[in-house]
Amino acid sequence: MALIVQKYGGTSMGSTERIAQVAKRVAKWARAGHQVVVVPSAMSGETNRLLGLAKELAPSHVTRDYFRELDMLASTGEQVSVGLLSIALQAQGQPAVSYTGWQVPIRTTSAYTKARIESIDDQKVRADLNAGKVVIITGFQGIDEAGNITTLGRGGSDTSAVAVAAALKADECLIFTDVDGIYTTDPRVVPEARRMASISFEEMLEMASLGSKVLQIRSVEFAGKYRVPVRVLSSFTPWDIDVAVEAKSGTLITFEEHEQMEHAVVSGIAFNRDEAKISVFGVPDRPGIAYQILGAVADANVEVDVIIQNVSKDGKTDFSFTVPHPDLARTMELLKDKVVPELGAADVVGDPRICKVSIVGIGMRSHAGVAAKMFRTLSEEGINIQMISTSEIKTSVVIDEKYMELAVRALHRAFELDMPGVTA
Amino acid sequence: MALIVQKYGGTSMGSTERIAQVAKRVAKWARAGHQVVVVPSAMSGETNRLLGLAKELAPSHVTRDYFRELDMLASTGEQVSVGLLSIALQAQGQPAVSYTGWQVPIRTTSAYTKARIESIDDQKVRADLNAGKVVIITGFQGIDEAGNITTLGRGGSDTSAVAVAAALKADECLIFTDVDGIYTTDPRVVPEARRMASISFEEMLEMASLGSKVLQIRSVEFAGKYRVPVRVLSSFTPWDIDVAVEAKSGTLITFEEHEQMEHAVVSGIAFNRDEAKISVFGVPDRPGIAYQILGAVADANVEVDVIIQNVSKDGKTDFSFTVPHPDLARTMELLKDKVVPELGAADVVGDPRICKVSIVGIGMRSHAGVAAKMFRTLSEEGINIQMISTSEIKTSVVIDEKYMELAVRALHRAFELDMPGVTA
Repeated sequence: MALIVQKYGGTSMGSTERIAQVAKRVAKWARAGHQVVVVPSAMSGETNRLLGLAKELAPSHVTRDYFRELDMLASTGEQVSVGLLSIALQAQGQPAVSYTGWQVPIRTTSAYTKARIESIDDQKVRADLNAGKVVIITGFQGIDEAGNITTLGRGGSDTSAVAVAAALKADECLIFTDVDGIYTTDPRVVPEARRMASISFEEMLEMASLGSKVLQIRSVEFAGKYRVPVRVLSSFTPWDIDVAVEAKSGTLITFEEHEQMEHAVVSGIAFNRDEAKISVFGVPDRPGIAYQILGAVADANVEVDVIIQNVSKDGKTDFSFTVPHPDLARTMELLKDKVVPELGAADVVGDPRICKVSIVGIGMRSHAGVAAKMFRTLSEEGINIQMISTSEIKTSVVIDEKYMELAVRALHRAFELDMPGVTA
Repeated sequence: MALIVQKYGGTSMGSTERIAQVAKRVAKWARAGHQVVVVPSAMSGETNRLLGLAKELAPSHVTRDYFRELDMLASTGEQVSVGLLSIALQAQGQPAVSYTGWQVPIRTTSAYTKARIESIDDQKVRADLNAGKVVIITGFQGIDEAGNITTLGRGGSDTSAVAVAAALKADECLIFTDVDGIYTTDPRVVPEARRMASISFEEMLEMASLGSKVLQIRSVEFAGKYRVPVRVLSSFTPWDIDVAVEAKSGTLITFEEHEQMEHAVVSGIAFNRDEAKISVFGVPDRPGIAYQILGAVADANVEVDVIIQNVSKDGKTDFSFTVPHPDLARTMELLKDKVVPELGAADVVGDPRICKVSIVGIGMRSHAGVAAKMFRTLSEEGINIQMISTSEIKTSVVIDEKYMELAVRALHRAFELDMPGVTA
């Protein structure tokens, strides 16, 4: 018998028919002898509907009091889901009980709309599990010290599920999604892409932040901090597949050292074409220039991703970074009007037609030549590298966006990710 | 400066446009220097939508665990309303804060779907009022001792509003509805029917239970118990009418003895055509026959209204009572198959074509001849009286339903209810 936390997304909870399917799947796990805690999202579309109503009433409000009311409003979506799922389970003869975040309670900070979980009381939940009930807990929300309802921000139900699993020291946290696991790269780009049976926590962090948006990044961080084994699997398989089979499906995000040892050098290829490149040329190389450029950009609330500064030549250096596409125009304006003149730089150039391709793998730490193999592969395809950035477990390059598919496919092949048995 | 509780129904909260109108009306009262607490219902249709989803998942569930989940589900409707109304007030520059039942907290019994309020903590609410905020509290719901969400049953928001007003010792509780007050009788039957400026608590109880369904009866009982002045008024007047004018509009349900003294003998005419009459003839007159007949009816969950048993003659008596129309057939079956044979009664006859007409008035207590005047009026119109039942402040007759409008109009005229200045 294991203690399993299961998280279901909004699509899985999208109608009473689908909720009945979720209930059948959950009841199957309970019948197989497991203790099950479920964390469902709001029915798909519901959170947007509620926030849309607020927007109609207050198109441009941003006060703390307003954010408090948004949380009051948005948290009802998950409350409806837990009530309905509990009813569906009871109707199928499975004893069940639902709790809101404040009932558990799940204590959070007071940062409305982006609160962070501080602690979870497991007392009620354990008592119900021991009494043979499935326990259903609202995702996405909690309660602050003063008794206000808070929410964790978009995708927060993933984080709730992992946090509940951590508090209960669950054996595994199953995240049911509309994909059947984490792939070596996007199968729409590389048909040979393979599902990984497991991936290390660190690799998952890099894959997620680089665009494989299966899990909310914060939930992965949470899983890492508390060493919660998380499995990403599909909610679109038939509900009655065998529990033993389902328990091994999807992709397990793992923290086991020995599995990392057996790991392939490169686990996956991530890519992102939502960024644009900005280069400031002929910057006088003196202390503080990075801050002068990026401080102004950050003040304008633009998120910067890759940052490259090369060694200087003749006391001048070139400084490049990437920003989200929608922020390119105003960032360029800001630099041209203010930063470049103040800095005494020669010129600033923006380019929206770029993409970032990254190879990710724990194995890179201890294997020389992985980056070199990446660069050679791209060179053989005639792809020019514009920027390079590296970390312990990933190497990213910025290239012309028209070469993206070509690059991803070539790298997937070069690192033998399409060969069965290599990964995991 | 007064402390005013305002309740708005689901129709008034039916869309963001209407919520914005409610916010303007509330803000107007706050600007006029009053402390305002608002208790809104769920947006119209929302509670039915939520319970409909539950019904789809569990068509015939009736366990306590199921009712707990219904409350979990249904309580979200009011939570959405308070959040939206608070946002609308803030958008109009009026500081506001919303609370759910459990946040106040409003403590109730554990009877899910029909809980009763036990206590209300006024601490938070007072602090916010003193800080210049409008306080918005979810109607219809509370929290039980174990921390479960409970609801008060249909129309429970009226009761919540009155209970909040009682806890805060509010100067008045304004119930905004789709009618502009309590009338001497239904204006659709008697065009000359007049709005009463005030009505006593006891009369309101009789009027409400007799079919003038403006206020949930429980809220009137609550108002009586705690002597909360309740005003029923229209939410369809323009929001910007003067506060002083609005404060005197509608109908005040009052507990002032001196107003009762000045009161007219008869305040209003109530009627009900939703009942059917059943007579059991030739019942042996011995102890326990009323129980034998009505006990069996009650066991079948049929609600009995008027009950008449006349003095016996030759050791036999006749026994009559009324039941809701939909219950006539099965009650007749029950009596014929079981009760009448056991009782040794002669016969049982059912008649669905009846109606009940009642005159209601505190003044009847001390005025002889009021009932006689009622009977004479009906006699002059050639209307035969089938049953008579009296209480301290009302006299009801059961007559053929085809005479209902005629009887109501004749009585309305006979007791001079259409004459200005007579009532209140």
